[in-house]
Order: sequence, then structure tokens, then C-alpha cells
Amino acid sequence: MTISVAVSGASGYAGGEVLRLLAGHPSVTIGAITAHSNAGSRLGELQPHLHALADRVLVDTTVENLAGHDVVFLALPHGASAAIAAQLDPSVLVIDAGADHRLEDPVAWEKFYGSPHAGSWPYGLPELPGHRDRLKGANRIAVPGCYPTSSLLALTPGFSAGLLEPDDVVIVAASGTSGAGKAAKPHLLGSEVMGGMSPYGVGGGHRHTPEIEQGLSAAAGESVAVSFTPTLAPMARGILTTATAKVRPGVTPEQLRAAWQEAYGREHFVRLLPEGQWPATKMVVGSNYAALQLAYDAHTNRVIVTCVIDNLNKGTAGGAVQSMNIALGLEETAGLMTQGVAP
Amino acid sequence: MTISVAVSGASGYAGGEVLRLLAGHPSVTIGAITAHSNAGSRLGELQPHLHALADRVLVDTTVENLAGHDVVFLALPHGASAAIAAQLDPSVLVIDAGADHRLEDPVAWEKFYGSPHAGSWPYGLPELPGHRDRLKGANRIAVPGCYPTSSLLALTPGFSAGLLEPDDVVIVAASGTSGAGKAAKPHLLGSEVMGGMSPYGVGGGHRHTPEIEQGLSAAAGESVAVSFTPTLAPMARGILTTATAKVRPGVTPEQLRAAWQEAYGREHFVRLLPEGQWPATKMVVGSNYAALQLAYDAHTNRVIVTCVIDNLNKGTAGGAVQSMNIALGLEETAGLMTQGVAP
Amino acid sequence: MTISVAVSGASGYAGGEVLRLLAGHPSVTIGAITAHSNAGSRLGELQPHLHALADRVLVDTTVENLAGHDVVFLALPHGASAAIAAQLDPSVLVIDAGADHRLEDPVAWEKFYGSPHAGSWPYGLPELPGHRDRLKGANRIAVPGCYPTSSLLALTPGFSAGLLEPDDVVIVAASGTSGAGKAAKPHLLGSEVMGGMSPYGVGGGHRHTPEIEQGLSAAAGESVAVSFTPTLAPMARGILTTATAKVRPGVTPEQLRAAWQEAYGREHFVRLLPEGQWPATKMVVGSNYAALQLAYDAHTNRVIVTCVIDNLNKGTAGGAVQSMNIALGLEETAGLMTQGVAP
Amino acid sequence: MTISVAVSGASGYAGGEVLRLLAGHPSVTIGAITAHSNAGSRLGELQPHLHALADRVLVDTTVENLAGHDVVFLALPHGASAAIAAQLDPSVLVIDAGADHRLEDPVAWEKFYGSPHAGSWPYGLPELPGHRDRLKGANRIAVPGCYPTSSLLALTPGFSAGLLEPDDVVIVAASGTSGAGKAAKPHLLGSEVMGGMSPYGVGGGHRHTPEIEQGLSAAAGESVAVSFTPTLAPMARGILTTATAKVRPGVTPEQLRAAWQEAYGREHFVRLLPEGQWPATKMVVGSNYAALQLAYDAHTNRVIVTCVIDNLNKGTAGGAVQSMNIALGLEETAGLMTQGVAP
Repeated sequence: MTISVAVSGASGYAGGEVLRLLAGHPSVTIGAITAHSNAGSRLGELQPHLHALADRVLVDTTVENLAGHDVVFLALPHGASAAIAAQLDPSVLVIDAGADHRLEDPVAWEKFYGSPHAGSWPYGLPELPGHRDRLKGANRIAVPGCYPTSSLLALTPGFSAGLLEPDDVVIVAASGTSGAGKAAKPHLLGSEVMGGMSPYGVGGGHRHTPEIEQGLSAAAGESVAVSFTPTLAPMARGILTTATAKVRPGVTPEQLRAAWQEAYGREHFVRLLPEGQWPATKMVVGSNYAALQLAYDAHTNRVIVTCVIDNLNKGTAGGAVQSMNIALGLEETAGLMTQGVAP
Repeated sequence: MTISVAVSGASGYAGGEVLRLLAGHPSVTIGAITAHSNAGSRLGELQPHLHALADRVLVDTTVENLAGHDVVFLALPHGASAAIAAQLDPSVLVIDAGADHRLEDPVAWEKFYGSPHAGSWPYGLPELPGHRDRLKGANRIAVPGCYPTSSLLALTPGFSAGLLEPDDVVIVAASGTSGAGKAAKPHLLGSEVMGGMSPYGVGGGHRHTPEIEQGLSAAAGESVAVSFTPTLAPMARGILTTATAKVRPGVTPEQLRAAWQEAYGREHFVRLLPEGQWPATKMVVGSNYAALQLAYDAHTNRVIVTCVIDNLNKGTAGGAVQSMNIALGLEETAGLMTQGVAP
Repeated sequence: MTISVAVSGASGYAGGEVLRLLAGHPSVTIGAITAHSNAGSRLGELQPHLHALADRVLVDTTVENLAGHDVVFLALPHGASAAIAAQLDPSVLVIDAGADHRLEDPVAWEKFYGSPHAGSWPYGLPELPGHRDRLKGANRIAVPGCYPTSSLLALTPGFSAGLLEPDDVVIVAASGTSGAGKAAKPHLLGSEVMGGMSPYGVGGGHRHTPEIEQGLSAAAGESVAVSFTPTLAPMARGILTTATAKVRPGVTPEQLRAAWQEAYGREHFVRLLPEGQWPATKMVVGSNYAALQLAYDAHTNRVIVTCVIDNLNKGTAGGAVQSMNIALGLEETAGLMTQGVAP
Repeated sequence: MTISVAVSGASGYAGGEVLRLLAGHPSVTIGAITAHSNAGSRLGELQPHLHALADRVLVDTTVENLAGHDVVFLALPHGASAAIAAQLDPSVLVIDAGADHRLEDPVAWEKFYGSPHAGSWPYGLPELPGHRDRLKGANRIAVPGCYPTSSLLALTPGFSAGLLEPDDVVIVAASGTSGAGKAAKPHLLGSEVMGGMSPYGVGGGHRHTPEIEQGLSAAAGESVAVSFTPTLAPMARGILTTATAKVRPGVTPEQLRAAWQEAYGREHFVRLLPEGQWPATKMVVGSNYAALQLAYDAHTNRVIVTCVIDNLNKGTAGGAVQSMNIALGLEETAGLMTQGVAP
């Protein structure tokens, strides 16, 4: 079986990583590669690491160019996906790496994004309870945000198992700079980011906050409130998420570990590390893996879960391709990077 | 006035930064420079950035070599300071950059360090309430740990003012690798740390935890429990601390800001940034400054304070020299770096 | 066809990269994985990015453990390969990633390595003229050094075509720190290497110098003398080589470009970039590609060729697997990474 | 004596470093601080590391605002300095950190900069033979480029002493990204530069080439031709220059070393390191020092000199302040950073 795939937003980091994976996918033929201001350029000028695709020429991101493929990846700024998706054949699988279709709650959407809600699509994080089933045969998939991917993988097992208090979640995450995209902004210059760390979107303002709360609340069966603080780290790729929650009375450390073990024991891409080994982003950079470890702090009665992913891979393009594989009934690991690139 | 100063542990990072500052201190003459295995070497081989001291030869760290100075800096592994200090003239000012004399509680000391408690000394963080007075004329000073420096500067104003709940503090901090010292360990190799982040000491096990709790409890007037997670960031210097606590009922965002403003408005080296500006470690690297910003997250009723310091400067050597200045009645800013080095 | 492969030196960086590639090679089954002091450990403790192999246990590097495979990779310190290879069945393909069998000249070997010469093996850089033929069916292959790989790819086309003067070659190369290996040495600590650059082995002393001269002399048909200066760059992977040589009288820029185009126009893994585009190590990190560009400086009558590779991949493990593929008659690109990992 | 100084271009990296130094200069009062598009902003928004100047407000870069000071620093894009300087009182000391007045040869200027030549000013590299005398009492000073500073310090002693061949100089230099300025360009994003190296301006096209040739030719007393290749390294600050030249027949390694020793033995800021110690940029970052080492490669009869500076300090702002000190008859080291900031 050969699946024809179009990729929009191909000059950005997310689009580039989608292309990197698809170029090695055994069942895929890459069709249209589209961009906005870079239409007409050779891909080799914009993504020079994609050697096999260097001579492909980017075309405009239009419905005409995207139509006629089995799958369309949208790696566009938020707000741009909905209009395009609405014009694509309903039978085409559209995978939106942007934010437009992640949130179920129109009020939360409008509060954080300031535009009309476009509706929500099946959420492409297969390792969450029940999500794999929803992805099978889906024609529309919303790829989770990178911070929500790591945050939900970190804490969902505890909430699903009813072991955690819903009103006291604190998440602090450090992301590589590729999460901020390829648009040239002064604070993202190498001179500014190398050798330093800084927070941003502090105090509940980051747009991934409602997405994290949506996922944890679904797992908990009640409303979960999250204090989320993202920080920018001096590395190109990777997210380290430190997520903590109060443990319900009477829950033992063994029960905690068992819940995570149960959740991920049969998952290919999510690894609960052996006790005593802590995750590091370089374990997973370049790959579709998440690695986790948890600790129980008796002193404060909290579980602390640290989780690492590659924000562009498992956090974006890898999760997208994994979800595509499930939707189309392919081998779930097809085309995905199963080893990190280290050191 | 010329003060003669001896510096032990001069081949390490803390000792090197102490020397960097003292070399520019207008009232100081640097006497003995001591080391353990590196005794006999030229300083230029070990600290080649200290150009003015390149031809100084390191001598053994012995009581004999350290005696006869007005001030002795100890930058030694924990456990080594107490025995030396006990043999130095009580009238000499001994400043211990190590951990030996930070904790007041022998039980906490023995739990975290596993050795007999050597007693506590005045704590060299002058910006904490009442501490500057205790440092004046002191002959023994314990330099705070780097994480406690940033954590206590972050949250003390809120606890001193009675605005925060004591039982729900979560601190996640990212440190540059120099905080782990100069001993060659595989996980600290450049190949391992560049481009990645990793947590360590998760779950309450880091030795700075009781020191942070000691300081916050003193400010609160009641026992404060802290969940502290340190992480290693791919940068040589700097700490970014994200500290959050529940706000007491009825406290307004204005009251919060006023408390921090009141605490630091007249401090030279601790800057509450203007609203809208977030700290970044590169603001303070190379200098004795701490920069802070706070946000109130109405959603979770938490205050989130982010604080940046240079772990080797304000977090170690700068705090030590500042405390020395206070103890000796010198200008508090003498010899200290009052501008960061950026980019 | 399934080829059984043993990998020695599996706890180091070269061994890790060999395993990363072999784990994705369609014709390979990984047999014994061996180490010296780390024998008995799980691979997941030492190479945690190799998720698929995490539970494999390392065994001792002995002839017994390595015997019985179709292919044996040796990623050992120099001096250790010859003795082991001598005891392995002559019909087994032994691929030595170390230096022992690279140099043809015993005098050069002894001058630079200070030990008896073990003889030379076919040299695993298939893109050099005539080398692919020598590798076909070979049972012993010496993997080139990382600096020689980039240096020879940079300049060989000009010497083969008789366009360059042999007595005036200057090469300056910047390498990521993984080239220095995983042994913990103080000057390789992250705190030391992040944010800085430094030279080493200056003045002709680096052991890769005679290897570069050997290759260029073979191409030129006369003795080529090289001034080679390596430098250490603050990155984990990658080499940027700047190689310059005087151009023979009467040679035109067009002839220069044509020579490189002719040499690499049909090569899969060596790319002469379009005019106007300069190589960057991040184009090739994680992949088996080399990317080059050349410029003619009329002012000094020199050609300047810049060449980038991933030192662990094309410069070590990738070149080794590519050579194995050729020796065994497999598809030359099998198991190799054909896209870089960027950003 | 108090000298009033105005600084233009204060929002850029060069201007920021000039302000950092002047803020600690014992004889200076900082007057007007000017910018172009950032006029009206607080300095604390743009240069948040300059704590002591955080509340100063930037004014427009106009002759009116710059007039009335004893010294005016121009840190402007090339082409902008000449017009302003022409309108400033001839008795005011104008120090141009830009390129406008560095080149003596109008033909070279026009070839590389494409605009009319504004004439040359005394060249602010005091350690070159005879230059200190030219700077004393000067009212106009051209600050050298950063690459020329390190290149000329590296090779001038050999040419002055007549030991080197003039027709075979090859220089390869690696610079931190701050050398490329603060304007947001995609290829300078942190995501692009972290973890990688790349060349640029290869083949004789970099504008610092004629400046290097001008200086070396003056030292040699004959025309020196240079092949210069700059590269971009993943660090914010620092330049490592590797400069090589053929040695004249009969010259011994001892004569070479003696020439450099003679040139720099009494210099404060230029250090020929002890034999066996190689320079590293982190020895000098944050300081006004240059550190050098040389090696003689008997094999190719070349001297290889490696030289490190901080491109923003000795390479720009430090050299500028040092030259100001000389021009005004102040202590030459006043206000300069005499220790590097490491690690």
C-alpha cells in the first residue's frame, strides 16, 4: 500500500520534522510540499538536512495543492487550519499539528486564543486511555501541543487510577528553542539563548494550560487545576517536564509505581525507566519516545514525575505520524524513529 | 585599610570565583592560595582566566598556611571545614562556602549529610530579614547554598508578610553545570550535558531541601514543607528557580507585589523587575545580582516567583564577599560585580 | 539474508552509534555486545537512547564472545584491535573503528602511536577513487579517523585531478566533543567546554596528520604535506573542516568546480552543495552525509573547501556500516541514516 | 578628573559592552545614551544585565544629543559614523567602533563596502608597534574589527621581525554569534546555531580581509596576502583564531618564540602563554585580554599561532576603552576587565 501525503508549512520546524519522518516511512509517498512565503524555493535551501528531498520545490499552501492526497498534514500557525480543513474532502485524513482543534471547550479556546472556536478533533496522543480507539479510522486528528504531550503522559496514570488530588497540580517544564518556531525574533537569537534560561507565560497565561487541564480532568473524572510554568532552555530540541501532585490519603508509593507501570508497561514509545534511573532529554531527542520516572516525596506527600520528550518528534511530528499509522491501520511504529540520537 | 585574605580550595569553581572577586577588591590583599592535590601548581594552569594571579603558586590547605590572615575563605568539600575552622584564631573571620555550618538542626544535618553536626554559623544572605545585623562583626559566616539563595530570595517576602500557606511549596530549579563542581564525572562531560536537560535528587533527597525549609520556616514563623526538584541545564553558570506557594485566603495580587517591593525596594543586589519583564539568568551571570518577578495565578490561587542568580557569584562567591564586607564594616558593594556579562 | 554482528566497545560513543545504526539495519541481527569495565551492565544504563536494546546485557570483550558472528565491529582504544583480530577466523568480516590498521607506513605509525605497526587493512572511505572496489569482499576493514574522513573528502578531488600544489595544504577543523570520547577528563567537562573553543595538538602533532597525508598523497601521486590544526567546539557532534591548498598555475575556477562535481556527482552520501550555499554541521548531524562547498580565492590563488560530517556517523559508525554493506554486497545505503536531525 | 562620555548605538551588543565597561570606569560619567529605533526605551528593557543603568532612558542618535561630551563612542552600522563625526567638535574624542575609518586604502574600502571612503583614523590596537604613540592625544580613533584584532595580534610579531613569508598566510577563525549583531535573522536563531558550526564569507569576501592585510603589510614592510575564512561557533562570545604562515629559510623555533616574547613581554593585556598551555576562549571571555600560543611545524615549515579574545571586549569595547585611556592620558587599564569570567 502506498499512501500519498501532502505536507503544508514545510519551511518550519514542525513541517521539517514531519518530512524527515515521512521520507523514511515505508508506506508513504510524499506529494505536495507547501509553504507560504517560501513557495517556489527548493526544500534544500530551507531544510538542508533533508538530503533526499533537497530538490523538491515548495508550492503555495492552497486547497488545490493539498487536495488529491490520502493524507494532509497541516503545520500552520493557529487559526489557519480550520478554513483549509473545511475545504478538503471529508474522507481525506487531515492531521493538524496546530492548536485549532485541540480544545473541546469553546470558552477556553476563546479565552486563550481570542478567535472563534473551530471545534475539536480526535486527540492524537494514543497512549492516553481510550484514545487509540478513537484514532482508528479517524479522518481528522488534532496533534497535541508539545507541553501537553509530556504533561499528560506524566500525570494521567495517577489521575486515571484515582490516586491524586485534583486541586494542587504544579508543572514546570523546560523546552528547547525549536518549540518557539523559526520566525526570527530578537529574544530567540543564539546570542540571547545560549548559556541562559528564562521563564515565560508565567501565571497561567500559556495557551497549553487549558489543554493540559482538559486532559487531566478527563482522566480524573473531575476538574483538575494546573499551575503551569514553561521555561526556555539553551538547547534546540527536547522538553523536560517536572509535574507534581498531592497524593490522596492512604496511597502508597507501591500503588503509585504500579499505576504508571500498568499504564505504560505495554506501550512501545512510553518508557517508565527502571527505578534509580532518571530521564534526560538526550535519551529521546530525535526519536518518538517519552521516558519517565516518578518519586514519592513523603515529606510533602507529593508524587513528582519527570518526563522527557523531543518536542518536535513525540511532541509534534512523531505523535502525528504515530496517529496517522493508527488511523490508517498501519503498523503503529512505521516510519518512526526508535532510537534517540546521543550524545 | 588593607585586609589580608587566604583562599582555600582555589582550584575549584567556587574558589576560582572568590579569587576573581578578591583580585578586584579595593581593600584586599590576597595572601595564601591553597589547594589539596594541586598544591605546587601555578594558578595559571588551573584558573587560566585569572590573569593577574597567573604566577601565584598554590600551597597546601593546612592550618599553618591559612593562619595569619584577617580573613580565611574555605571552599572545601563538606566535612572538611569544621576541623580547620576550629584551629583558626577565633578573631579571624572565617567564611565557609561549604555546607558544614548552614543547618541549625543537628537531626536534619545528620539525615542529609550523614556525619556529626558541626554547629551553625551566621548565615550569609544579607537580604533576609535581620540577617545583615547578625553578620556585622561576625567572625564566622556560613555561605548559603546556591539553590537556597535563589529559593529564599524568591519566597521569603511572602512568608515574612504572612501571605502564603506553609504546607504547599513547590520549587523547581535549573542550574548550570558549574554547580556540580569540577571533579570529572562521566555524566558531567560536555558531550552529555550539551543540548539536554535532566533532573536529579528528585523526591526530597537533595541536601539543599532542609536548608530551604529552614529559611522559609524562620520567615513564616511556622514549619514550611518544600517539594524541591533540581535539574541540570546545558549552561555553565546560572540558576533559574521557579517557586510557587498557595496564597492565603483574601490576599490580593496588589498585596503580594507590595510585600516583595517592600522587601527589596532598598536592596542593591536584589531586583524585583518592572511588571511585564521576566528574569533570565543571563541578566545576572558574572554579577552579584538576583532578579525576580512574581505572578499571581488566580486559577490555582498560587503565587509563582521566578528568581535568577549566578550560582557561583551571588550563589557562592559574591554572597561570601558581600557578607565579608558587612562583617568588616566595608562598603557592602566593594569588589562585587555590579553588571552582568551579556550576551 | 540475516547477518549476525558482534559489537565491542559498546559503552563508548563510537560503539553506541554503531549499535544505533545496526538496530535499524534490515539485514542484521545484533549478537554479542561487549565492553570492558562495563561488562555485566544493561545497555540501557550506558546508552539510554538505544531504547530497543535497553535490556541487552553487555559481556566481556573476549575472542570467545566475539567469535561465531559474520561481522565483528571493534570500537576499542588503539592498540587493542590487532591482537583480537588476529584470533578471529579470517573469513569473518572484522571492521576496526580504531586506528590500528589505517596507516600503511610503519615509520609514520610508530612515530605517532609509539607501538609496533600491525599492518594496514582496506580503508573504509568508499568515495575515494578506487576504494569501493577494494572494499568489495574484504574481510578486514579499517575505518578512517573522523578528521581524515572530512579532510580527504574535502581535498581529494583536486589532487586526483592534478589541480593542486602538494606542498602547501592547510587544514583547520572544529570537532564536537564526542570525538574526544567518553572518558571523564576535567577539560572535557560541560562547564569547561560550553561557551568556548580551544585548539589542541597544534604544530603537526595530531595523530590524524599522517593519515590525511597518506590519503592526499595517494590521490596526488606525490608526497603531500599538511599543516593540520584541530579545535574543540562547544557541540556534542559534528566536524567542520576548512581545507585550503594552492591552485596550480592556469587552473580556472570552473575546472575546480568540475573536478569536485565529477568526483561526487553520482555519490549518494557526499553532496557538493549548490553554489551559494555553505555547509553547516547541523545539515548532517545524525546522518551518514558529508556536505561540501568550495571557493576560489583569486587573491591568494587558493581553493578553500569546507566540509561537514557527523564525526560519529559518517566519521565513524556510518562509514563503518557503509563499508560493511559494500564488503558483503548489500545495498550500500542499508541501515544508514539518510536525513540529518535538525534543528 | 571626570570625563563625560556619550554612547550611541546603545541597544546593540557593542554599545552594551561599552556601557558595561564605562559604568565601572573610575574617571567616567556616562552622559547621553542614544539609539535609533529604541529611543525612548529604558536601558533596562534592552540591556537588562546593566543593572546600574537600568533606569536610564535612551535618546535619539543625533549630533545634538551627542554634542557636549568629552568623548563620544559610535557603535553604529558602517556608513553612519562619518557624517556624525564630521559634525562633532574636532576637539572631542570620537571613538568609532564601526568600520568606517579603519581602512587607509580607498580602493579596498570601496571594493569591500561599496560606498565612498571616509578617510582613516588612528587605529585603536595599542599593542601593534608604534600604535600607542599614535593614539596619545588623538581626537579620532578607529576601533579595529574583532577578527583583525585577533589576527593582527597573532601574526604581527613574526612579520615585524622579518621571520615570515608574506605570500602564504592562512587564517581560519571561529567567532561567537554576538559578532553577527543583535538584528534578528533566521540563521542566527538559537535553534539554528546551537550544536553546530558553519563557515561564511569564504573565498576572500569577508570585509575584515583587507583590514588584516593592511595591518600585516604594515608590519612586514611589504604586501601580505591573506586567505581568511571565518566560521560561526555555538557560543555567544569569543574568537579563536588559527593563523599560519610560512617561515623564512633559516629561522629557528627559538627565534620565533623570542619574537613573540619580545613583542608582548611587557604588555598587560596580551599574554603569550607558557609553553605547553594552549589558549581557550573561556580564558578571556568578559575581559580585555588576548592569549596566544605558537607552534612551529617542522613538517610544513609553518608557524601556527592560535589567539583568543572576547570579540565584544578586547575585540570591540575593551579595545575602545583602552584606546580612550591612552588618548586621554589615563591609566591604560582603567575601567577594563582584568579577569575573565570562567567557567
